[in-house]
Amino acid sequence: MTAAGTTAALVTRPANVRYLAAAAPQGSALLLGKREDLLVCTGPPEDRHEGRPDESLRLHVLPSNGAGAGGDAAVAAADLATAQGADSLAVEEHHLTVARHRAIASVAPGLRLGDLGGAVEQLRVVKDEEEISCLRIGAEIADQALGELLESILVGRTERHLALELERRLVDHGADGPAFATSVATGPNSGRRGHRPTDRRVEEGDFLTVCLGATYRGYRCEIGRTFVIGTSPADWQIELYDLVFAAQRAGRESLAPGAAYRDVDRAARHVLDSAGYAEALPPLTGHGVGLEIDEDPQLAPASMGKLDACVPVTVEPGVHLPGRGGVRIDDTLVVRPEADGGPELLTITTKELLAL
Amino acid sequence: MTAAGTTAALVTRPANVRYLAAAAPQGSALLLGKREDLLVCTGPPEDRHEGRPDESLRLHVLPSNGAGAGGDAAVAAADLATAQGADSLAVEEHHLTVARHRAIASVAPGLRLGDLGGAVEQLRVVKDEEEISCLRIGAEIADQALGELLESILVGRTERHLALELERRLVDHGADGPAFATSVATGPNSGRRGHRPTDRRVEEGDFLTVCLGATYRGYRCEIGRTFVIGTSPADWQIELYDLVFAAQRAGRESLAPGAAYRDVDRAARHVLDSAGYAEALPPLTGHGVGLEIDEDPQLAPASMGKLDACVPVTVEPGVHLPGRGGVRIDDTLVVRPEADGGPELLTITTKELLAL
Repeated sequence: MTAAGTTAALVTRPANVRYLAAAAPQGSALLLGKREDLLVCTGPPEDRHEGRPDESLRLHVLPSNGAGAGGDAAVAAADLATAQGADSLAVEEHHLTVARHRAIASVAPGLRLGDLGGAVEQLRVVKDEEEISCLRIGAEIADQALGELLESILVGRTERHLALELERRLVDHGADGPAFATSVATGPNSGRRGHRPTDRRVEEGDFLTVCLGATYRGYRCEIGRTFVIGTSPADWQIELYDLVFAAQRAGRESLAPGAAYRDVDRAARHVLDSAGYAEALPPLTGHGVGLEIDEDPQLAPASMGKLDACVPVTVEPGVHLPGRGGVRIDDTLVVRPEADGGPELLTITTKELLAL
Repeated sequence: MTAAGTTAALVTRPANVRYLAAAAPQGSALLLGKREDLLVCTGPPEDRHEGRPDESLRLHVLPSNGAGAGGDAAVAAADLATAQGADSLAVEEHHLTVARHRAIASVAPGLRLGDLGGAVEQLRVVKDEEEISCLRIGAEIADQALGELLESILVGRTERHLALELERRLVDHGADGPAFATSVATGPNSGRRGHRPTDRRVEEGDFLTVCLGATYRGYRCEIGRTFVIGTSPADWQIELYDLVFAAQRAGRESLAPGAAYRDVDRAARHVLDSAGYAEALPPLTGHGVGLEIDEDPQLAPASMGKLDACVPVTVEPGVHLPGRGGVRIDDTLVVRPEADGGPELLTITTKELLAL
């Protein structure tokens, strides 16, 4: 608010509301007011997946007929800011639509509207130990789900079935749900970032890339592994795997407080680059995780900034060769100083090339 | 564009892009330009779930380094609109964020920006027979998944497991995926709209409310049923069920071309109201379905407008008694004139009160 020059702020992006209020009931907005802070909800908060609102926070539940604000918590919150005597309000312009922004301006014409920008997102980058502990439990759950899948018969099953099976296992082991749409990629699809499962069936000789994560108390982690189906991988598969493994290790080993985001990216990217895969490279080789699966920082060539201790990030280089498939290896780690043992690996499933 | 007084329009809401372009690759934007229409994508479209772009449409794939527009297809499209000689551009102010709107204004300072409003959403209300056929197949899939669940043992299983099981069955039967998060509600949770599954287990004597839907080629349908667990329902359960059934039937029977949205709502609501459940009533008793699960029209007390033929809607009244549970019955139907046999029921699972 100081930076935006306003006396009050309105937080609407759900993960930001959740971070500051410990809960984000659907459609809620958080007013950081001149006199007091209010969590404005369209109904009584009751869903355990959305957390329990911080007890120091006053709840303001809109009447169910939505009177006065068209049922929009942000618009109602702007009205409440005025009632508290605020003359200006910083809003999240990267989240509010033009239409909602206009509705706020119209219900509170006396308020000067400013931009809160990514201020809350920046607060979220460094995690406390309680947050890291949620990520650690989520990673254990994902490791368990993946481990069980590897013990089952895979040949002949479709990508979609394997993905659904993994999601069921995540919930079995206590996850709120998957952290993102589970990706299972076989044969020519393997190694593709964010591949959506198809009806293709696992075949002997395939590469199989699996990327999944658990949400635990709102916190989202990520693990990705590539396996080979059948008894002995082909030479090209071993070579490609070793290369991506080396790139991923280089990225992991460069994680340290003070390391530039782009240097971590470069460490991983350089290994692939010098082996001639510059064209096949992804736009980033890792990113922050937390209440969202893809949050700051971005580990990418043009990213500005340096890592701090207690920042959880993924390191996930991959190579996909169109028509043939590829390899992707993805871990979630927490940046720690060398005195504390260096980066803490949360996702501990083996990164040996397993033949399943 | 005529209404907005502009020479070009930019469509960004994904379901609207999909409707007009037959595909909506992630992050894409559709420019209805002065000289030609362009589907602007951040990468080559390849995902079958997102459809195949209309062949008459020119694709414009942004360079992967995102040069010039920060990788934002909407910003790039505004630039392309200028290059085509447009002097004004209607945008979807209810979808674009303030920050993206500003980025568009900044990359194309010569463009006067107007508001396209809900113009595309309005085009989407009446469906053609191809769209209805996708909804019909989706409804068949949902009926099948639900039917199989009813044949299995339910007592002792958790809401979350039953929901995951239903979603797996939807995919088994050919759905792209669930149309929305499957809701399974037992005992005191039963009858709650949009209940998110918990770890509560099904018990003898429970009401069990299940609400699910399939997405088929992008189109989303919805079915909801309430059952009783055990051999003989209690008297209060039979009474409540009969009441909600009567309300739902009244809603269904009032569906006709020319019927006011709010009269359909009133038909269903009146039955519950006059039985003394005014307080427990939901804000709406039905809504349109299509490329989104909740689209126009809203069947609610304050809705303005009248039904047309070939509009698919849900009719889904319910009563939830806090601490006891409740009943919800939900169908997807297509409005048809009486000469064509009246409303077409897509979700055909029985609405008798089954004891499972």
